[in-house]
Amino acid sequence: MPAPTACVLIIGNEILSGRTQDANLGYIGRRCDALGIRLMEARVIADAEPAIIAHVNECRALFTYVFTTGGIGPTHDDITSATVAKAFGVALCRNADAVAALDRYYEPGMLNDARLRMADIPAGARLIDNPVSGAPGFQLQNVFVLPGVPLIMQAMFEGIVDRLAGGPEILTATVITDVLEGAMARELGVIQDQFPDVSIGSYPWFRHGTLGVNLVLRGTVADRIARARGAIEKMVAGLGGKVFPAAERPSQ
Amino acid sequence: MPAPTACVLIIGNEILSGRTQDANLGYIGRRCDALGIRLMEARVIADAEPAIIAHVNECRALFTYVFTTGGIGPTHDDITSATVAKAFGVALCRNADAVAALDRYYEPGMLNDARLRMADIPAGARLIDNPVSGAPGFQLQNVFVLPGVPLIMQAMFEGIVDRLAGGPEILTATVITDVLEGAMARELGVIQDQFPDVSIGSYPWFRHGTLGVNLVLRGTVADRIARARGAIEKMVAGLGGKVFPAAERPSQ
Repeated sequence: MPAPTACVLIIGNEILSGRTQDANLGYIGRRCDALGIRLMEARVIADAEPAIIAHVNECRALFTYVFTTGGIGPTHDDITSATVAKAFGVALCRNADAVAALDRYYEPGMLNDARLRMADIPAGARLIDNPVSGAPGFQLQNVFVLPGVPLIMQAMFEGIVDRLAGGPEILTATVITDVLEGAMARELGVIQDQFPDVSIGSYPWFRHGTLGVNLVLRGTVADRIARARGAIEKMVAGLGGKVFPAAERPSQ
Repeated sequence: MPAPTACVLIIGNEILSGRTQDANLGYIGRRCDALGIRLMEARVIADAEPAIIAHVNECRALFTYVFTTGGIGPTHDDITSATVAKAFGVALCRNADAVAALDRYYEPGMLNDARLRMADIPAGARLIDNPVSGAPGFQLQNVFVLPGVPLIMQAMFEGIVDRLAGGPEILTATVITDVLEGAMARELGVIQDQFPDVSIGSYPWFRHGTLGVNLVLRGTVADRIARARGAIEKMVAGLGGKVFPAAERPSQ
């Protein structure tokens, strides 16, 4: 059976405009690695009905899992839940369990109409518990609808892990060196050919006037990654370069 | 004429895996605002030929401009240039002007075969000058191929600005308040209805145990944004809330 795949739909004008830096893709990416789910792509889209409908429907057909973030709060621009219902062609209904969750979270008298809107959930969806701020997300078939605030999204993601069928954990290792890409590209290509089961990525960095490269190894067999890493470190030494300990890793 | 649109294709396994935080979308988003180009979406995709071909071809048909970042260096995983050539069905050729640019950048004897690969450019493309590290990007019709290293990408983006036809600048203003979303959602919706030409986004934040909301106004007419901002500040005061000066803006 091929490894399960996933896509993240980051819904929010504020990410797209560059105003807010997304912090959810990195978290979901690392969790997918650990769960053995291949995160194939992410799309950052606007809080706009046509875009949400088109991307939800395209991605849920293409990938094993779709994780959406953002747009499930109480304000006028929070249209994700209603729009996902439209994408699936199902009704949006006030969900009694969601009302109960909100009722437990809010102080008496604070659960107004706007906040109750967060209990409007597509028919047939399974709720995703929100241990931080009450308002639940939901799962509709293979689409998981999560909030945009990173701390809340993370807590809720952990609550759906047992609904996801994964594969072998995707392991990574990083070699940080001052050898430049162009100086090792040929030898690195030879090593990549020797280890077709290890994906080797080369990422130049440029910090404080210093140039270097992070070589990132990804695969599912620890011994193969260790061997590829050994071959890379030998190559770096042969080129007269330096391997930095992880503690000296330049911040990116 | 409708405003020109754009899409960013962020090409790179390292972004998708969560290892590296993308820093290019924010820059391009802010520059598109200033240029009056509507950034409609961004897609983060793997360094994989089928994905690059599919997304380049889909997006260049959908949007006025497509900006790609990443994958144009000298190593085996840098496949963007060759793959964009395939997407357009044109040959990849060693470009004499690109060779000359590399030759000017590298010390004598350092321009090896791997680095020369960076001069392989799709036939018919127009080069994008790289004032930082020599290796050019290129423009093929409405697709602009840029590098992934942010400082270099930014310098090269500034070099293509005069090739882009924009519209009225998209202006923004932000009101930062401690009134929570659910407490003002109804009133905020009324203000949004009063200002259909100003897009009002509501973004909760949660920092150091404090909750609040950033309200972001976007539009092209300064006076309308100022009036909408005034209405929001009056609403906040009416609800007994506080508007924070921009200097106290919580980091996100």
